[in-house]
Amino acid sequence: MIGRLNHIAIAVPDLAAAAQQYRTILGAEVGAPQDEPDHGVTVVFIQLPNTKIELLYPLGDDSPIRGFLDKNPSGGIHHMCFEVDDILAARDRLLSEGARVLGSGDPKTGAHGKPVLFLHPKDFNGCLIELEEI
Amino acid sequence: MIGRLNHIAIAVPDLAAAAQQYRTILGAEVGAPQDEPDHGVTVVFIQLPNTKIELLYPLGDDSPIRGFLDKNPSGGIHHMCFEVDDILAARDRLLSEGARVLGSGDPKTGAHGKPVLFLHPKDFNGCLIELEEI
Repeated sequence: MIGRLNHIAIAVPDLAAAAQQYRTILGAEVGAPQDEPDHGVTVVFIQLPNTKIELLYPLGDDSPIRGFLDKNPSGGIHHMCFEVDDILAARDRLLSEGARVLGSGDPKTGAHGKPVLFLHPKDFNGCLIELEEI
Repeated sequence: MIGRLNHIAIAVPDLAAAAQQYRTILGAEVGAPQDEPDHGVTVVFIQLPNTKIELLYPLGDDSPIRGFLDKNPSGGIHHMCFEVDDILAARDRLLSEGARVLGSGDPKTGAHGKPVLFLHPKDFNGCLIELEEI
């Protein structure tokens, strides 16, 4: 069911410093910051040869990553995103196996304009998993 | 400098359950458990189309992931591994930029038989980064 690893998302306490670090110290291809007001984050994409890293920084008062950074002030890996062909079929399979989908269970439009769902970390070894229909 | 994401490593509290979950619920290609006594872990590799997941479970009394699981009893993402062409050049660049390499600074032989180094999480947004020479 799951396909490619679309990205790893890292919540960071200082977006400019983290972007600069990946660019100059780690020598990666780092994009410009993009505000995603609908998702409460500012994002910097880092393109690796086979996948992406997304650096996430809170945007606005109601950012979904604020709590994570409060608990992890140095930052940390926030989630990983797997691609699926059919997000509704993936959801139904997960639910039938007893896994929990966060929120209403209806896909939302993710930061890339594609339908996404998040799975409950307690059901998946403490890891927040995003599924994105590609 | 950094190339492909070689793998994401996830520490899990129940290796058989986690492997079964990735195989049946998430429909991924999951290998057999492999003991790595030199590294204090039992590993299950999950092959995705573009990268790998490594499920890690403690092996022996002195496992380097025991403390992580004590702090994160549900499990969690333990580290991510980037490929580099020349690990000594990578290390020297990192040290010259003020980043800290864990241990002696000399590469060790990793679970795949290649030279590896780990970077200090406090220098990289709370993320443990492994570099592997490919």
